[in-house]
Amino acid sequence: MNRSQVRIAIDGMGGDLAPSEIVKGTVASAKDYPECHLILTGPAAVLSQELANYAPAENIEIVDAPQVIEMAEEPGRALRAKPDSSIIKGIELVKDGNADAFISAGNTGATMAAALLAYGRLKGVHRPAIAIVVPNKTGRFLLLDAGATADCKPENLLQFAEMGDVYCRRILGVEKPRIALLNIGGEEEKGNTLSKETHKLLKDSHLGFVGNIEGRGMFQGEADVVVCDGFTGNIVLKVVEGFAENTFSYLKENTSKSLRAKIGGWLLKSVLLDLKKKADYEEYGGMPLLGVNGVCIISHGSSKAKAISNAINVAVKTVRTDMLNEIAAGMETHKIRSDAT
Amino acid sequence: MNRSQVRIAIDGMGGDLAPSEIVKGTVASAKDYPECHLILTGPAAVLSQELANYAPAENIEIVDAPQVIEMAEEPGRALRAKPDSSIIKGIELVKDGNADAFISAGNTGATMAAALLAYGRLKGVHRPAIAIVVPNKTGRFLLLDAGATADCKPENLLQFAEMGDVYCRRILGVEKPRIALLNIGGEEEKGNTLSKETHKLLKDSHLGFVGNIEGRGMFQGEADVVVCDGFTGNIVLKVVEGFAENTFSYLKENTSKSLRAKIGGWLLKSVLLDLKKKADYEEYGGMPLLGVNGVCIISHGSSKAKAISNAINVAVKTVRTDMLNEIAAGMETHKIRSDAT
Repeated sequence: MNRSQVRIAIDGMGGDLAPSEIVKGTVASAKDYPECHLILTGPAAVLSQELANYAPAENIEIVDAPQVIEMAEEPGRALRAKPDSSIIKGIELVKDGNADAFISAGNTGATMAAALLAYGRLKGVHRPAIAIVVPNKTGRFLLLDAGATADCKPENLLQFAEMGDVYCRRILGVEKPRIALLNIGGEEEKGNTLSKETHKLLKDSHLGFVGNIEGRGMFQGEADVVVCDGFTGNIVLKVVEGFAENTFSYLKENTSKSLRAKIGGWLLKSVLLDLKKKADYEEYGGMPLLGVNGVCIISHGSSKAKAISNAINVAVKTVRTDMLNEIAAGMETHKIRSDAT
Repeated sequence: MNRSQVRIAIDGMGGDLAPSEIVKGTVASAKDYPECHLILTGPAAVLSQELANYAPAENIEIVDAPQVIEMAEEPGRALRAKPDSSIIKGIELVKDGNADAFISAGNTGATMAAALLAYGRLKGVHRPAIAIVVPNKTGRFLLLDAGATADCKPENLLQFAEMGDVYCRRILGVEKPRIALLNIGGEEEKGNTLSKETHKLLKDSHLGFVGNIEGRGMFQGEADVVVCDGFTGNIVLKVVEGFAENTFSYLKENTSKSLRAKIGGWLLKSVLLDLKKKADYEEYGGMPLLGVNGVCIISHGSSKAKAISNAINVAVKTVRTDMLNEIAAGMETHKIRSDAT
């Protein structure tokens, strides 16, 4: 293995469509990135058989991990019971310096817990955050934390803003990200105790803080990075998913009810597909776990090949831009109270 | 005025479409409820002129309120500066026993603050909550708190559940409401400190608690009442609004881009309008402010006549079912720690 290569470990058994879609996406990326080394973790026999469907690729390797953590398993228990799982093996490759990043579309809780435990926190970071790219009217915005830290202090949210700023610049290519605080009103004095105190910290920071943002503003494109605690962020994420799912299932059902609706649906097919694609944050390459001392990207459980390829893109970019060191450096620019850990 | 009548005060100047749509809705309701007395508050000359467009109705009265609080005014300042506003006059009618309920589609913050101040809290209630009816796959669910109490204790959420239970039975007609706690996972131990402690209280209560619910579950129809703190609830409300607005503006724009899309949009018109109607919680008659010692219903700023009529329906039902006393009685069934106020 050439040590100057970027090496990405991918959970070959993670997600509802594993291993087939995971392997398919990995094979596609191996062609796009001939200079990168891609490592699939999972039962060697299963993955070899799947890989045999494609032309051999020199830059794909299999690392045997005979156990698989199922999507619905309780994370803590699963990690203890399955030390040879594809998730743990992949995380260990990074921890031991044999890979630069790990990607999984499998059990989110288990992936996050394993990464936190094995990587540890990045120097200066008090709490980790999951960032997610959400499509909106003008393009997309980064929302964090989407579920890593349920109970947050204002200082945690300040750090999330810093991490989001780095990610937005390096990975999404926004030169000067507009950072906003998710809140229930535009005025500084609006919100709960957490948001009011966070507002003050963000206002005094070096970041491009544009103030509070509400649900409508996020979708209108008023900010590039939206910061909130992990409880609120996870709720937002799942409300959007639930509402979108509802809308599309309604449209699907009702465009087959009559001949008129069927023809209408057929004529509007590209518009409706495009709408669905716009609402599909899968397009944006998974959710990075930020604040840990290693690269870990969590993909959606229903990830298809394209989502995996997108996640590999993001992982490669993250490694090449040396994002971890930039985040660690960013932490030093904020004066965080020593009791706010 | 016949004291046995139900008397509803309506802010004639509240909302983007006031006074015309407000008066139109009031006139329609006056016909539907000949036995009720409807009182419009606002500048008498303006409202008289508006009413002159319709056949005279004996059960509509105007109470002069020369001042109008604008939608964007800061609530506290506006209430102090405009003691003769249509909102304050309407709330005072209820406070002084001259009306049984007040409805406004105007400045939400000002309406809520005025009602809290004038009505006071209902006996036993520690914090008020705004409830909102949200459409979902199987019909609708009640979400509370949607923004009255940003910082909540577990005991507040228990009380919200009790209030939601009463409202759901009395106004929405659900015999045994399924009560759920908005959370970021299904398991009891999931969530932030607030949701974990609230889960215990709800589990031990007499209510029909069905456990935690996530975004998807809400829209799939897994519960009739969903409880959360006012910060989270308000974010959910505005995220749904923002996302829906985005979806519809995308569809509108894209069904006029080509002839093919135009025809498709025309053929699907009823399907799309129905989708929009389903997503429009306006259909459900506004948001009651629960936990205060008086009836106050807040309608959406863009309320049309039909929304106002629906709000009047809800107000009449609320008064007739004697909901306030039932909520107060419900408070006594819970053992609330004396420090949890």
